[in-house]
Formats: sequence, C-alpha cells, structure tokens
Amino acid sequence: MYAGKSVKRVDALDKVTGRAKYTDDLCYKDAYIARVIHSDIAHGKVISFDISEAEKVKGVIKILTCFDLKEKHYYATPGHPYELDPEQRDVEDRLMLTDTVRYYGDDIGAVVAENEVAAEQALKLIKVRYEEYPFVLDVREAMKEGAPQIHKAFPGNILAHSTIREGNYEEAIKEPGLIKTEGWYEIPMVQHCHMENQICYAEMHQNRIHIVTSTQVPHAVRRIVAQALGMDWGSIRVVKPYVGGGFGNKHDIIYEPLCAWICKMTGGHAVKLDVPREETFVCTRVRHGFLGHLISWVRPDGSFAARKLEAISDTGAYASHGHAVCLVEMSAFKQLYPCENTEIDGWTVFTNKPAASAMRGYGVPQMMWALERHTDEIASAIGMEPVEFRNRTLIPVGYKDDFAKREVLFNSHKQCLDKAMTILDYENKRKEYMNQTGNIRRGIGAAVFWFDTGTWPALQENSSCRMALNGDGSIQVQMGETEIGQGADTVFAQMAADASGVRMDMVHLVSFQDTDITPVGLGAYGSRQTYAAGYSIRKTGTLLKEKILKRAEELLQIPESDMDIIDGEIISIKDGAVLKNLGSLAKEIQYSRKDSTQLTAESTAHISAAPYTFGCTVAEVEVDIALCKIKLINIVNCHDAGVLINPALAQAQVHGGMSMGIGYGLHEKLIFDQKTGRTLNNNLLDYKLPTILDHPSLQAEFIENPEPESAFGAKGLGEPPVCSVAPAIGNAVYSATGVSLNRLPMDPHELYKAFSEAGLINDSERQGYLSTT
Amino acid sequence: MYAGKSVKRVDALDKVTGRAKYTDDLCYKDAYIARVIHSDIAHGKVISFDISEAEKVKGVIKILTCFDLKEKHYYATPGHPYELDPEQRDVEDRLMLTDTVRYYGDDIGAVVAENEVAAEQALKLIKVRYEEYPFVLDVREAMKEGAPQIHKAFPGNILAHSTIREGNYEEAIKEPGLIKTEGWYEIPMVQHCHMENQICYAEMHQNRIHIVTSTQVPHAVRRIVAQALGMDWGSIRVVKPYVGGGFGNKHDIIYEPLCAWICKMTGGHAVKLDVPREETFVCTRVRHGFLGHLISWVRPDGSFAARKLEAISDTGAYASHGHAVCLVEMSAFKQLYPCENTEIDGWTVFTNKPAASAMRGYGVPQMMWALERHTDEIASAIGMEPVEFRNRTLIPVGYKDDFAKREVLFNSHKQCLDKAMTILDYENKRKEYMNQTGNIRRGIGAAVFWFDTGTWPALQENSSCRMALNGDGSIQVQMGETEIGQGADTVFAQMAADASGVRMDMVHLVSFQDTDITPVGLGAYGSRQTYAAGYSIRKTGTLLKEKILKRAEELLQIPESDMDIIDGEIISIKDGAVLKNLGSLAKEIQYSRKDSTQLTAESTAHISAAPYTFGCTVAEVEVDIALCKIKLINIVNCHDAGVLINPALAQAQVHGGMSMGIGYGLHEKLIFDQKTGRTLNNNLLDYKLPTILDHPSLQAEFIENPEPESAFGAKGLGEPPVCSVAPAIGNAVYSATGVSLNRLPMDPHELYKAFSEAGLINDSERQGYLSTT
Repeated sequence: MYAGKSVKRVDALDKVTGRAKYTDDLCYKDAYIARVIHSDIAHGKVISFDISEAEKVKGVIKILTCFDLKEKHYYATPGHPYELDPEQRDVEDRLMLTDTVRYYGDDIGAVVAENEVAAEQALKLIKVRYEEYPFVLDVREAMKEGAPQIHKAFPGNILAHSTIREGNYEEAIKEPGLIKTEGWYEIPMVQHCHMENQICYAEMHQNRIHIVTSTQVPHAVRRIVAQALGMDWGSIRVVKPYVGGGFGNKHDIIYEPLCAWICKMTGGHAVKLDVPREETFVCTRVRHGFLGHLISWVRPDGSFAARKLEAISDTGAYASHGHAVCLVEMSAFKQLYPCENTEIDGWTVFTNKPAASAMRGYGVPQMMWALERHTDEIASAIGMEPVEFRNRTLIPVGYKDDFAKREVLFNSHKQCLDKAMTILDYENKRKEYMNQTGNIRRGIGAAVFWFDTGTWPALQENSSCRMALNGDGSIQVQMGETEIGQGADTVFAQMAADASGVRMDMVHLVSFQDTDITPVGLGAYGSRQTYAAGYSIRKTGTLLKEKILKRAEELLQIPESDMDIIDGEIISIKDGAVLKNLGSLAKEIQYSRKDSTQLTAESTAHISAAPYTFGCTVAEVEVDIALCKIKLINIVNCHDAGVLINPALAQAQVHGGMSMGIGYGLHEKLIFDQKTGRTLNNNLLDYKLPTILDHPSLQAEFIENPEPESAFGAKGLGEPPVCSVAPAIGNAVYSATGVSLNRLPMDPHELYKAFSEAGLINDSERQGYLSTT
Repeated sequence: MYAGKSVKRVDALDKVTGRAKYTDDLCYKDAYIARVIHSDIAHGKVISFDISEAEKVKGVIKILTCFDLKEKHYYATPGHPYELDPEQRDVEDRLMLTDTVRYYGDDIGAVVAENEVAAEQALKLIKVRYEEYPFVLDVREAMKEGAPQIHKAFPGNILAHSTIREGNYEEAIKEPGLIKTEGWYEIPMVQHCHMENQICYAEMHQNRIHIVTSTQVPHAVRRIVAQALGMDWGSIRVVKPYVGGGFGNKHDIIYEPLCAWICKMTGGHAVKLDVPREETFVCTRVRHGFLGHLISWVRPDGSFAARKLEAISDTGAYASHGHAVCLVEMSAFKQLYPCENTEIDGWTVFTNKPAASAMRGYGVPQMMWALERHTDEIASAIGMEPVEFRNRTLIPVGYKDDFAKREVLFNSHKQCLDKAMTILDYENKRKEYMNQTGNIRRGIGAAVFWFDTGTWPALQENSSCRMALNGDGSIQVQMGETEIGQGADTVFAQMAADASGVRMDMVHLVSFQDTDITPVGLGAYGSRQTYAAGYSIRKTGTLLKEKILKRAEELLQIPESDMDIIDGEIISIKDGAVLKNLGSLAKEIQYSRKDSTQLTAESTAHISAAPYTFGCTVAEVEVDIALCKIKLINIVNCHDAGVLINPALAQAQVHGGMSMGIGYGLHEKLIFDQKTGRTLNNNLLDYKLPTILDHPSLQAEFIENPEPESAFGAKGLGEPPVCSVAPAIGNAVYSATGVSLNRLPMDPHELYKAFSEAGLINDSERQGYLSTT
C-alpha cells in the first residue's frame, strides 16, 4: 500500500532541477506577443481609439480593439462543468474585449507584436477617448439608490439576494434572559498571488485552435473558448503543462478566449499572452470582499436561541462565480452553529473594482473571520471559555445536510481542537495570559472552520482515468484532474499503484492534460481532486487488474480468482507465491502471435457525495500595543481530512494554506484610489505578501477519520488550511488585549485605530514610547 | 461513406501554410547540440582520441567517445515489434558508439555544444588514432577466403545463407529441348533521400528520458532506446511529430539511443541530434546492394521446366534488417513464376560500406529488376511476346502461400497489364518499334511486381485505436499507426468517420504519437498501415457506436437495435428519421447529474493475414544511342491495391513511388572511393536524384479488387509503386535497342558500356555524331 505513505513527489526532481516545463517554456521562439489594452478609467464607454502612432512601432503586427470584435459571444468565466439546465448556468457577462468599461483596467483592446518591447511601446502610444460615468467602489454605496449602475441586467447593482429562514427569529429573540452579541465584520479584496501569472499561447492547426495554458481546468477552457468564439467544442484543443499555482484564480477562463481570437485574427500564427504581474493583480480575479452583520442571541447556558446574518459579497465589476461564494458563506454560518431560529440574508453586489471569483476557501475564510471572531465575542459576553462554548454548540455528530445529503460522522472539531490545544498548552496559557497589562501582551486563541469537499450537488462531480499496461509491466496513468503545484500527481500515482497492484516506480503518471487525449476531468477546485480522483482510479485500476488476471488465467492455466497482483508480480492468493512477473506477462500479452493486445482500462466515476471536512487553528501571539504590531509566536492547524494519502504532502498543503491565512489575517489588502478607482498596490512590492521570514514554524496536525464513501478514505484538504487562521489570530489578539478586531487585515493601520478606540494607546504616550525604542 | 472518396488531406492546410510541426520546430531554443564523430577510415580499431583542442572551443559542453560507453548494450536497429522468441530476433550488432570501425563514417564519438557552430568547430579539431585493417567493398570479394573479416560472429562475412529446394532442379534441366536463359543482375546501394533528415532530441524528466524524433515507429523507438541504455521500457517516452518522409530509413532506430544517452550524460538537459544530409547519406541506412544470378529453363511452349537463383544481398557494415530483405527477394523469385523445380540460394553478406536496411520495396525492387529483365530475355529467347509469356506463367489465381496462409484471389496481374498496356497502346507500339535503326530509337516495355501487404506471419501484425466522444458529438481518434507524409491520417479519419457514423469534419485525428498515451501501434512499414489500421478502426468505431446507442436507448426509450448513427445524428433505422443530434446526446451523457460518463472506446485488432498486392509498370522510352541517354516518354503504373480509401492520395502515393523508381532505374547510385571506402556522393548535388523536370507525366491507374478479409477492402500501396518501374524501363530499352541491360542505374556510363559492347556505337563514330549535335 502506498496510500498513507509520504512518498517523494513524482515531480520532485523536475521541479528542483528546473526541468519541469511550464507554459512559457513550451512556447515557440517565434510566437507573436499579445498585450492587452486596459481602460484607465473605472466606469464609462469607449468612444474611440487613436492607434496611428502605435501602429508605426517596428514589430507591431496588429492592433485589435473592442470595435473589431464583430461577433459578440458573452460568456461565463468560471471553469465549472457544463450545466445542462440553462437556469443554473453561471452568469454570461464577459466579452473578450468590451467597450463598456466597468473597472479601472477593463480589457478594451490588444496589441500584437513580434516581441515584447514593440508590444510595450505600442501600448504606451495608444490613446483612448471615453465617455466617463461616475463609479462606485464600496458595496454599501453601490446598494444605495442613485448609485452608478454597473450592469443593466442587474438593477441596484445586486447580482443576487437570497434568504434562509428557519424557525422564527423575531419570535425567538423575545425569549427572556437572552444575551445579544452583534458585530459588523469587514474583509477587503485580496489577490491570489500564485507564482506563475496567467499565461497562455494559441496557434491554429487546420481549422482548429490549439491552446497551451496555465489553468486549473483544461477541459473547461476547451468548452469556454469554443463558446466565446462561437466555435464547435471539438475544434479547440487545450494543453495544460505544469502550473505555478492557481488558488482559484486559474479556475476562471479569462484570457484564453482572447488569445485564441487574436491568433485567429492574425492568420493562425502562434500568439502568446503572458499577463504581467501588475495586470494579474487587477485584471484577472480577486477574492470577494465581504461585509457581514452578525447577531446572536444566546442563553446564559451557552445555547443559541436565535441567529441572524446579513452578508454582502463584493464581486467587483463582473459576476464570475456569481452568488455561489455568498451562498457558501450563508451555509457555513447556518451549519457550523445550528440553531432552530435562523435568519440569513446574502447579497452579491457589483462595484467598479476588479472582478472577484474563486479563491482558496471560496467564502469560508470570509465567513470564518466573521463567525469565529463573533463566537469569541459571544463566549466573552456570556462569560464562557470560547472553546468550551464551541464544543457545546458546534455542528454535532449526526447533523444532516439535506441539500448535499451528507452527515456529520465524526466529532472532528473537538478532536482537532483537543489536539491543537494540547500542543500549544492552550488551557494553561489562556489562564496565564489573563489580565495582562503593559505594552507587550501575549494571547492565545482558537478558531474552527466548516468546509465541504467537492461541489456536489451544486455542480456535477466525477472523475475519469485511463491506465495502459506497458511492455515492462509498468503502467501509464492519465487523469483529467490536474496538478497545479499541490502534489496531486503524486497522490494519484500512489492510489494508482495500490489500485492496480504495481510498485510506485512502475506508475508513470502523465502530468500534462491535453483535451484531445486526456480523459475528461473537472480539474483542480473545491478541494475535490484527491477525493474525486480516488473513485476513478479505484474503478480503473480494478478494471485493468481484471483484464490482466484474465489473460494470466489463459497463460498460466490458474483460475483468475486464485491470483492477485502485488508489487508488480502475479501471485497466488493462497500462499503468496510469485507465479509470474507482470513485465513478462505484459510482453506475452502485447506481443502474442495468437492474440496480441494492448491492455488498457478507462472509466468515469460519477460521484454523488461531498463529505464535510472540519478542523481548527490555534494561534499564539505577542502584541506590541504601541507599535501596533502582532507577532505570531505559535500556530497550529489541525485537520480531519480523512485518510492522508501522502502525509508529507498533506502537511505541505496545510503549511501553504496557513501562510496564506497569515497574509490574509495580518498583511494583505488591495487598495483602490478613491478618486480614479485604480488599484494602487498592483505589485509584489506594494502588496504585502508575507514571506517565510514573517512566519513562526507552521505546525500541521491531523485527525484521520476515514471517510467511508471515499475510495481511499480521503476527503478534501486543498482549501481548508486557510479558513480558520485569521480568526484564530484575531481571537488570540482579543485574548491578549481585550480588543475585538473586526476588519482584516490586522495590520498596524487597523490596530492603531482599534487600540486607540479602546483607549489602549494615546498618541502622546505612544510617541514617548516610540522615541525610546 | 467517406472511404472511397478523395477527401482533402486532414493536414493539407497545416502543410501548405507551414504550420505543421516537425521535430526541429518543437525543440527548445536552449537545447544542446550534439554532433557525431565519424570514423575517417573504413575498417579498424580506434586507439585513442585527442580532444584537447576541441575541448577549448567556447560553447563545447562535453566530448564523449566510444571509450566513455561503459555499459555496452548491443542492440538491433530495426523497428519491428518485440519478438518473444529470441531465435527470431533481429541481429544485435549495434553499439551507440563503437571502437571497432566497420565502414568509413562509423560512429565513434559525439560532441555536445551550446550551439551548432561550436559543435562543428570542435568536430574539426578532434584527432583520432586508429589501428587500420584492410577493408572490402564488393560482396564477391567479401565472400572470398582471406577477405577482411568484418564481424567475428559471422565468419566469411556471411550474415546468413538460406536455400529453397523444390522438385529436382538438376534432373529437370536434363529434359530435352529446353531453352536456357542465364543472367547476372547487379544493383548498387542507393539512399532513401527523405526530405527531413534523421533528427531527434531528448530531455530527462524525473528518471525518465523523453525523446521527440522523426521516426516511422515510435513505440519501437521506446523499446529499443530502453534496451540500448539498459533501462526499463516504461522509463522512455517517445513523441513522433509530423515526419518529412522515411521510406524505410526511419524504421531503423539509429540515433535515438545515442541522443538519449548523451542527454543522460549531460545532466538531463535537452540535447538535439540533427543529422546533416551528408551523414544521413552515409551513417543512417541505404538500400541493399544486390547481385543475382538467374537461370531459367523453359520449354518452347513457354512453360518453365526449372528455375534457379543465386542472390547476394549486400548489407554493408551492419546487419540491421539482416537476412529478411534477401528472403523477400527469394520469395518474390519463387512465387511470381511458380515452377515445380526451383533451386534458390540467398546470401546476405557484410562489406565495409554503409549499413543497408529497409527501403521502399524491401528487396522486391531488386528482385523485380533482375527477374523482370530476365523474363523479357526468356521471352526473347523463346520468341514469345514478353507480356504473352507473363500471362501464361505468372502466379495464377488459386496459388496458395502456405507460410503466410494467403491465396491469389484475383487475376490482378493480367487486369493491371491490360489496363496499362491499353493506355499506352502497347501492342501497336511494340510492333511499330520493331527493327528500328538509327541513333534515336523508341521502345516500350512492361514489368510486373509481386508484393505482400504487411508482415504477417514473419512478424506480429496488429493495430490499436482509441476514440473519445467530445461534448459536441465530434470524436477524437488516436492511432498507433503513423503519418509520415503519406496521408495515413486522412485515410484513418475517413475510416473512423465511417466506422463511428460521424461526419468527416467531426473526426479530430490526433496525428502525433506519444508512447505515454497513444495506443500501441507498430508504425509505418510493410505497406501495412491502411490495411492494418482498418481493423482496429472498425472494431473501435463499432464499440463506440454501441456505447452511444446504449445511452441513447436509455435517454430516448427506443431500442438500441432500432437506431443507428449517420452523419452525426441518431437516426431511426426504420425510416431514417433523425431522433437526436449526437452533440446534444453527448452533452447529456457527459454532463448528466445522474450518471455522467465520458464515452470512449479502445481496442487492439490482432491480424493474421497479409494479402498479395500486385501490379505493373508499362514504360515507353526514346533512346539516344550516341548520347547514351534514355528519355522516358510515357509511364503508367497500374495497381490492384484493393479498395482505394482515398483515390487522390493513392494516386499521389503511386506518383511518388514511380518517381523513386525512375531515380532507381536511371540515376541513383552511391559511389565509394575504392582507396578509402569513403562515400563520394554523400549530398544532393553529387547524388543524382531526379526531379519533376526529369519526369514525364506519371500515370497512376488502379484495379480495385476488394480484399475480403480487409476491414475496408484495402490492401497495401506504400511500397509497390517503386517495384516494377526500373525493369519496365529496362525492358523498353531492350525493345528499342535489343540491348539487355543488367546493371542499375541505366545512366550514360552504363549505357555507354553496354552499347559499346553490343557494337551499337564505336568511339570514332560517336565523336563525329557528338560534334554535330
């Protein structure tokens, strides 16, 4: 069995030697370079372009503007599987190039040149005339009457508003003796900051367009490019090489259609569209901003009488994943602390800002920040230790989610909390840190998260796999699911070895997806891949094994049912004796003069489940009140992700997520110029991404409750690690200072405001302190 | 039905626009450049290298010599399927680099540099010390006692000697009244001259080696590289892009192992080995030289009493395809004119010349030159019209070949001859051209050929195919069989459309083979691909159709057996009514919320047949005796290749073969320096390849006797067109001049000798004539 072992990554050597090929490595030396012309206003209409000077630049091939886009096919950017029901499809609000500008940076044209210098020079020489409209950057303003209207189809800038009503909130709050806790929580837009920016190139072969792209979802790219260009799906081919991270941003199909169209418009010659970092920040996707109003009515014994949420999700200028992120926020709120009387309203609202979309956690980090900070406030209000309060009120074993048909099977939250708290000596420290005074104070806090693996039943769930037996007994494995840096290929290879009975070194996993060839897969999102791929790997491996043993029966004259394949050997089930080497058998099957056959197996597994995956963060901080600085001393994440297929990779995944959570909690925020709508910190210098130097040791712990439905007992782990980090830090700061923060990031600006309001600092004292340090 | 129609090539647009990607187009810009160090002696032992000066050249990465090859894995170069029986395997006599030099140009080392200039400079600075041995270039000399011995394992330089004895030749020739015809026929080595030279590049990923190469047989390359490097087969990946011709030369795996080894020795960095034309001529492969001694004893009525052949096949310095070419020559001799008393001896002999291997026709052009020239001599000896003689004596309908289990089913030879002769008005011209005098004389001649499609039962025969249904109802088709310029992909696509029921434009044929992914195929050789691929395409298309109709039954509630797929629509068999569009159905299957499935089908077809494929050439010439020049006026090939899947492509195939046959007949010959063994005309200036300007209109005609076993009624057509061209021209010259030529090419040198010997010219008369023209 390889599942469960920390085998080395199947791409380790390639990654550390630089041999791993990414999109840019594969692009032809003579490819044209395309660069996008972005609007430099936040809202308005393009009237005209003056490209006369730009066209004179040597090396410029063509300048295309939104007015050259004659056939307008609006498309939806999310890389979801195709939806048969038109009512349930994502909002189709994107054009490859638009004359209606909805944010500062909108795509209004493109320059195609022989090289990057010419493209850059031409970009600078293009003059655009606009009709300018007022713009709105704040969701509260956007929802007001008279606000600038961003999409005609969505009056009041409201993409969607949905409600959950359970029990009777208004009646329930009348119960005497209830303690009310109320808070507004606010979270800014942040960016994914994957290492490799969005990049793709396109070329035509015959009447088809081939695209190589850094995507999480190659099969979705195929469909969406076809839709955006009004072509048949089969006339598009998409190849996904190694990908330098996506975190959800590469789940949207943003520039592939434009690149394909430019290719078509320039005679089918290869065209590369390599999005610079500055444009990746602004013109790809960001995390939804969030504004939440939470009210809890709790009895003195710590039970909920009623709960209420008003959530506003800021989707920016375009719908992208639409209302789905907000719906996840609503579900997380509702389910994590079940209560008979619950009232939830969720709005997704347009603003003239970059478009928000999927980002690691998909609404859960937003909701956890609000809810888990709120939970500590409730605990404080009723005078109960917050973890104690959680253990009494959290979603219990036996809870059933009727929509997704899933049930809470394990007491994961308590198990995770216990483990993480024990490691950090939570209880003792909690006591120790009570009633501190002075400028430097320590605190410890915990937060949990709610998450579900995959997207069933909101979306279709399946995975496909093909295996082929080589002449040496090794196997080729093709998966529709994608490696984007997370280690998926390694985990697939481990499961494939177990499912087919060969050794790990006999599994040759085909990493690159090619939609002409690769079994259809849905791709990397929803923390679904290990879980989903397990089904098709098990199914396909079993099929292949059956085919091999059937031929072994013929050749060895031993009943199929008496044999098995272990470590690449055909063995007798009775006594484990090796009957034949799989490599020898493979040759006899492939090169038989009687019945030569290539043994392959292929299958799709349809999946109708989406298990819960729970966990927590415990964080310990040291707060320098005068400096308005939080020093993270210790942090532990503990997850129940089911059986870990590869514990070392699981740990790496959690480390990455914790790092992202720390950035989210303490540093990151997109800043917009209120006068122009321009994103001011659209680069890795001004956007404060934490580095390894900003982190304490990141501790990843696990509880492995095996998921019974799952092929290898696993459930999701991609997104969860980011979800509870920020609130745990916030709760630690609360424990250290008594100041309850409600806005992210908890950076010095925010702390200064909060500490000042709380009377912890006043400027003159602070100046004195600062001058002495 | 698309089979039978001259649909446009599926790669037409790509080929004419230059978008089609060949190996060099795909290679990385920063790949190292490898160049081979070739011996500049013909026979001997490498003592040492002085690389001190070469190493100083800027940009040189490494110089590897035969002494760096520590692990010596001898391998066989032919790209045949793996042979389970060790006795039947090809001779393993090749090392990637050798210290034993067996011809002028042998591979003794390699230079690796950052660029071509550095590699070239370094090559020139390398000094090699040898121990020199005497060498032998002529097969007769090589067979003599005391000749230089080229391979220790093959004393007397004889790779193999085999015999066929039927009846009793010695007794039979005693029959009174027999007319004896005897001749020696000689054919020089020629080269394939494919447009794209041998080229490959290798790079390492993890512990595997990836190779992109211009080959006919990617799956064989995978195995042979593994064998040559002592690695597991599965650790090699081979990709075959578009190929600029092979004609058999790319059936041998010559430089891929060396390139892979160099890559391994230089840290896994990409290394390109692009063989220059000069080296392609000498260091890849050539056609076997041939020397044949034919004796026929014929009764005055034209029946054979006894036949005898002594054939010597010149394989040059290495075995490569070994004795197989000679065995084909022997079979062709025996079967084309069956006779009760036949005695055949065939020898394959080593000489210190470039290694011979597969080349279009595989021995048949050699044997046809000898046999079909000989046949006209017999006819002349007994005073019978040569076609009349052929029609009486050629292999008859009902003839059974017990080895290959095949039978002559049609009177193809006569049908083809009749058609071609009618077109050129053979009978009248034959009469007209009798008894000519003067310097300019015309003649017309015919020749037939014997050929068999595929390689069963000498080798394994099968083909594999995978089809996948796209969301728009189009299908992806993957074949193990390879497009190498001949149009195979188009023919596969046509058959796939018919087999699956979709329109041609709905078939997306995946042209490039990738051994990690592509169904195992044997590749392009033996004129087998259209025939062999038909089996697996039919099998797989039928499987896919069944799967589609099964799902259609569920969705439409109509019995599967009442439906069919025609032109991409599900129709009712009863009335042809369209029940559902395949694209809509495909979406419902792929994106079902109940049972989403990717419909694919895959199969291997094992083939146990190898049909005869016969035909002829009729040629008309004008001979300028004094100028020793043959002007080809008219030429017609007529083939029975069974059903033509694509008549236009079949015609193109025949045109190419006829052109090659004309070159073989009139121009081509490798010339060796008798003092050094060096190939003197190793380039396209000195090697006289005919061009379109040297040709009359090439007329390709067909008789379509459908092969009953064949999936689409086709049999082979790749090699046959070259087989009977040269003897037809020779027979035309014979008819024009009475001079029976027996050596190829029939160039002015040869004609001068022959015409002088025949007393047709003497030098003084000729000088006089020449001075007046």
